[in-house]
Amino acid sequence: MSVVFVSLGMTVDGYIAGPNGGPDNPLGDRGPTIHTWMYGQRAFRSRFGMAGGDTGRDDQILEATMTRSGATIMGKRMFEEGEKNWPEEAPFHMPVFVLTHQVRSPWQRPGGTTFHFVDDGIESALERARDAAGGKDIRIAGGADLIRQYLHAGLIDELHIALAPILLGDGVRLFDGIDPVRVSFEIAEAVHSPSVTHLRYSVKRPRR
Amino acid sequence: MSVVFVSLGMTVDGYIAGPNGGPDNPLGDRGPTIHTWMYGQRAFRSRFGMAGGDTGRDDQILEATMTRSGATIMGKRMFEEGEKNWPEEAPFHMPVFVLTHQVRSPWQRPGGTTFHFVDDGIESALERARDAAGGKDIRIAGGADLIRQYLHAGLIDELHIALAPILLGDGVRLFDGIDPVRVSFEIAEAVHSPSVTHLRYSVKRPRR
Repeated sequence: MSVVFVSLGMTVDGYIAGPNGGPDNPLGDRGPTIHTWMYGQRAFRSRFGMAGGDTGRDDQILEATMTRSGATIMGKRMFEEGEKNWPEEAPFHMPVFVLTHQVRSPWQRPGGTTFHFVDDGIESALERARDAAGGKDIRIAGGADLIRQYLHAGLIDELHIALAPILLGDGVRLFDGIDPVRVSFEIAEAVHSPSVTHLRYSVKRPRR
Repeated sequence: MSVVFVSLGMTVDGYIAGPNGGPDNPLGDRGPTIHTWMYGQRAFRSRFGMAGGDTGRDDQILEATMTRSGATIMGKRMFEEGEKNWPEEAPFHMPVFVLTHQVRSPWQRPGGTTFHFVDDGIESALERARDAAGGKDIRIAGGADLIRQYLHAGLIDELHIALAPILLGDGVRLFDGIDPVRVSFEIAEAVHSPSVTHLRYSVKRPRR
């Protein structure tokens, strides 16, 4: 059975993107610094067609995150930001389901990424992702609003936060607007390198 | 030379106290749940005159935090909240310097805690705390506003966040209003138990 997980970068002050983000400013002002730890890793570089890179524990964690995923789900704004900025060979190499109100045919990219557009809700997108994942896990990529919707619906099993030792002071917070009664966590792991702290939580089933 | 440090509890969504806090509602609504991991530890219980308690790694960390401190600095609201709620034998057992605009004579409690009231600024309070600490470390206890003032002034060496695996959804955030250009961190440690994740950062010297 596929595990449904979130894996994202966050600053110590809780931001997962900077302010003023959009297709012309991906991740927002200073947002790319949230992921500084990632850019030198071999697992990251290889997805963008670059050779070399670090191969320590951060790389192993990143590689495992990418390898376990058989399908990805993302929101419309995240897709639109990426559509303009990903290389032609989009860095997913798996089926990606985009939640949108727009009806659109699948968009196939070289390298194995096909974007499917889903206009009938988060449960339907998850069902389609399960069918496509072939038993591998399903990653809810973001943005914040989509992750909160899945958390509130009790559909996420694991949350991995790569906590960057920086402050942004402004931007998009993952947990703004979350209902603390419906979402709670159990600590699964905390490991760190000099660049990032990996916090792993199991999401507890919501009270019915 | 005394190390100046902060050690506090924070939720995954960044709150160090719940909303509506005050002398009649210490730590705010649901705020005490931030410190749930602490209440069963021997180091905590002993400071409140209770026997027994857990003696695992969380307890060792808490004991070390308390033992290293030779003086504590806190803001006026934190003091006023505690003044009404601490037992007669206040749980510090060391000199405590309270930043306030009110001139007031020292208030000596049984068990070795004396509150000194400082009305001429954070640097003066730190100087007095250094003199009183006898070479031990100095803890900036809070609240959030006071910690931000010390961080902005470049006067804090270490930040220890005991990250509770809960969400509050509302309350007092440590980093609201922080200037991200003036404050940055280096990761020193991350260890976890089933109840809490201890994140330890060195505070980098501010750019002059």
